[in-house]
Amino acid sequence: MPPVMSITRTYAFCAAHRLHTEQLPDDVNQTIFGKCNNPNGHGHNYTIQVTVQGELDTKTGLITDVNRLDQIVQDLIVTRFDHQHLNFDPAFQALTTTGENLASVIWDLLVDRIPSGRLEKIGVVETRDNFFEFVGDQKSAIL
Amino acid sequence: MPPVMSITRTYAFCAAHRLHTEQLPDDVNQTIFGKCNNPNGHGHNYTIQVTVQGELDTKTGLITDVNRLDQIVQDLIVTRFDHQHLNFDPAFQALTTTGENLASVIWDLLVDRIPSGRLEKIGVVETRDNFFEFVGDQKSAIL
Amino acid sequence: MPPVMSITRTYAFCAAHRLHTEQLPDDVNQTIFGKCNNPNGHGHNYTIQVTVQGELDTKTGLITDVNRLDQIVQDLIVTRFDHQHLNFDPAFQALTTTGENLASVIWDLLVDRIPSGRLEKIGVVETRDNFFEFVGDQKSAIL
Amino acid sequence: MPPVMSITRTYAFCAAHRLHTEQLPDDVNQTIFGKCNNPNGHGHNYTIQVTVQGELDTKTGLITDVNRLDQIVQDLIVTRFDHQHLNFDPAFQALTTTGENLASVIWDLLVDRIPSGRLEKIGVVETRDNFFEFVGDQKSAIL
Amino acid sequence: MPPVMSITRTYAFCAAHRLHTEQLPDDVNQTIFGKCNNPNGHGHNYTIQVTVQGELDTKTGLITDVNRLDQIVQDLIVTRFDHQHLNFDPAFQALTTTGENLASVIWDLLVDRIPSGRLEKIGVVETRDNFFEFVGDQKSAIL
Amino acid sequence: MPPVMSITRTYAFCAAHRLHTEQLPDDVNQTIFGKCNNPNGHGHNYTIQVTVQGELDTKTGLITDVNRLDQIVQDLIVTRFDHQHLNFDPAFQALTTTGENLASVIWDLLVDRIPSGRLEKIGVVETRDNFFEFVGDQKSAIL
Repeated sequence: MPPVMSITRTYAFCAAHRLHTEQLPDDVNQTIFGKCNNPNGHGHNYTIQVTVQGELDTKTGLITDVNRLDQIVQDLIVTRFDHQHLNFDPAFQALTTTGENLASVIWDLLVDRIPSGRLEKIGVVETRDNFFEFVGDQKSAIL
Repeated sequence: MPPVMSITRTYAFCAAHRLHTEQLPDDVNQTIFGKCNNPNGHGHNYTIQVTVQGELDTKTGLITDVNRLDQIVQDLIVTRFDHQHLNFDPAFQALTTTGENLASVIWDLLVDRIPSGRLEKIGVVETRDNFFEFVGDQKSAIL
Repeated sequence: MPPVMSITRTYAFCAAHRLHTEQLPDDVNQTIFGKCNNPNGHGHNYTIQVTVQGELDTKTGLITDVNRLDQIVQDLIVTRFDHQHLNFDPAFQALTTTGENLASVIWDLLVDRIPSGRLEKIGVVETRDNFFEFVGDQKSAIL
Repeated sequence: MPPVMSITRTYAFCAAHRLHTEQLPDDVNQTIFGKCNNPNGHGHNYTIQVTVQGELDTKTGLITDVNRLDQIVQDLIVTRFDHQHLNFDPAFQALTTTGENLASVIWDLLVDRIPSGRLEKIGVVETRDNFFEFVGDQKSAIL
Repeated sequence: MPPVMSITRTYAFCAAHRLHTEQLPDDVNQTIFGKCNNPNGHGHNYTIQVTVQGELDTKTGLITDVNRLDQIVQDLIVTRFDHQHLNFDPAFQALTTTGENLASVIWDLLVDRIPSGRLEKIGVVETRDNFFEFVGDQKSAIL
Repeated sequence: MPPVMSITRTYAFCAAHRLHTEQLPDDVNQTIFGKCNNPNGHGHNYTIQVTVQGELDTKTGLITDVNRLDQIVQDLIVTRFDHQHLNFDPAFQALTTTGENLASVIWDLLVDRIPSGRLEKIGVVETRDNFFEFVGDQKSAIL
């Protein structure tokens, strides 16, 4: 059986966001989210890590089609979120724009679109010291 | 004469902004600023480099009071801009929120407040691949 | 069931240490630890990665209380070790100050103190090219 | 039972390579590998992460002999590949020089040579945004 | 007078090269260039820093047209050198492919093409620990 | 005239230190140096940047002999300070071990030993956010 490997590709986008949910009163939002609840929003340089696991194609030495993967992530993730305010995105109408939810949303947007192999993990680097990871087998069902 | 040295301290804040000026029609704003002109704004993890040059105090081996410098930058820059939308800041009411203007504004806010030595350079890292530097002798006069 | 996610927060402290154990003769210490056995000690800029895993709170989009986590790590780890000599810390009276033991000690200090979710992993970056990880379910029992 | 830990050591080498296999016609090579198929080759600063897992020696606080590990990786990996063209290496006579195959080859070269503990993972950082990982229990059998 | 600022944009390409000159006998090449003289070549992930200095346009808050600058560097530098062997490039037929010469060549290719402002500096990061800078007022005349 | 270029080589060492001077009373030391005055010392992973400027040798495309430079810095700086306590070094008997003084000391140790070209700048990275630079024409005369 050919070895199973993983490849992690890194992508970047810049976006604004505000942590706030209509499901909670304003003062509770303020208590929970603190300065991230500022109504004018703030923003980040997000780095997204897409990890694909697959069997090695022993002829080519590849586990997935990286060019197609890049095109898919560019079309579905980077173009969608780059230079946008995440709170205005349809995916976040019922979800706060936390790193946790962003990782789940990206997982859901990509999990059925991996050219070959399977999506193993989504990483979201929000700041130099704040990093989120989501590992699943199928749709996380939050979308 | 004691040697002249420089120290560079790095600070970080997260902010939203939108590149847009009322001095130009909307379509010209769009042409010049492209995706950075998105009305909802976007954002960055800004890293600020403050370089202070000074004569070495041969007794202490220091050129400035780093604790006071940190406190000043914290009070005047980080607290002011962190988790804010730059376009709402008074300093940017007549200025676009480009990295160039941000470097100038930070220069002006700090140049007279350095505990000892003199402000030599302000660096603004906006993204991994986009970096601005401003070197002046006095107030840049844009504020 | 809500998705399970992880968040990794990064913290830093600077400390001195010396690799040496009273349980072994001096020449064996020297053989095993080499230049790290220098009696005057040396030091590092340590970076600590604290990974917490938890169920997503679907209302807030969070898996833990990051502000409390930061405060706990600041109080229990950073304040304790920053600008200290690790060999003088009570935790290391019977333990060498290797990256391995440091990871275990930090695990033990934090494992019962995570505000919500559970401690998944402790990472210790000792130098640019030297990194330790400890993953456990409960107290590692070395303290 | 003593805790089980892991240590990751990072090593670097610079090498040229070309993605091409004699098992496929030239035009298929060109389609699959694109610009990486350029006959003159191109190159990278490779960073290799060697993760060793082991039981903590409670006397020394170590899980492996790092000096011997470094010497082994230096002799078997760095000296062999640094400032070389990977396609000329015997290991790659029947294998393409993809990051996937490079991770497998390094796994096979090191798996039986770890001084104590066991090889847990090989990471290959090919570019800033392209990273490969191989995790196995034994020889991957591609060599 | 408007303030003078600088912007540094970072670009990346991967290339092979070999340090060797026909102007010197083979054994002298070997002595001077050591392992970099290996006939099969080796390679690097090059990072290029292009620093442009200019007067601030007080209306837009910009010192140059970044989109045009990016397009020019993409066309003249990245497309030309990415996934190539530098020794086969016409610019290096009479020049060794050292970091010094690469910085000079890039300077010469860009100095007359800056959209506005002037080229202030070219930086070439060859490896993590090896960095070259060239600062000039006009063509360096090596091309 | 051949172009003038600069090369920056980066070196690393790990060391302990304590900020304290016998020229000042203990309480003044404590006020000025704060937690850095802790008698047990603390430590850092120091990164040293050595910038050499020189005329391009148009035959080789080099401005200095990098192998000799590396050997000199290894012998005079890295071997001397790595895994040491800086306060025990003869150079610091009358000097505090600040980043400023460390940069000056390294300048003085290297300025007359550059194989070709001239020493242009010494950079000392003490922590991720703390960086010192010294630029001189000759011995800084603090040694």
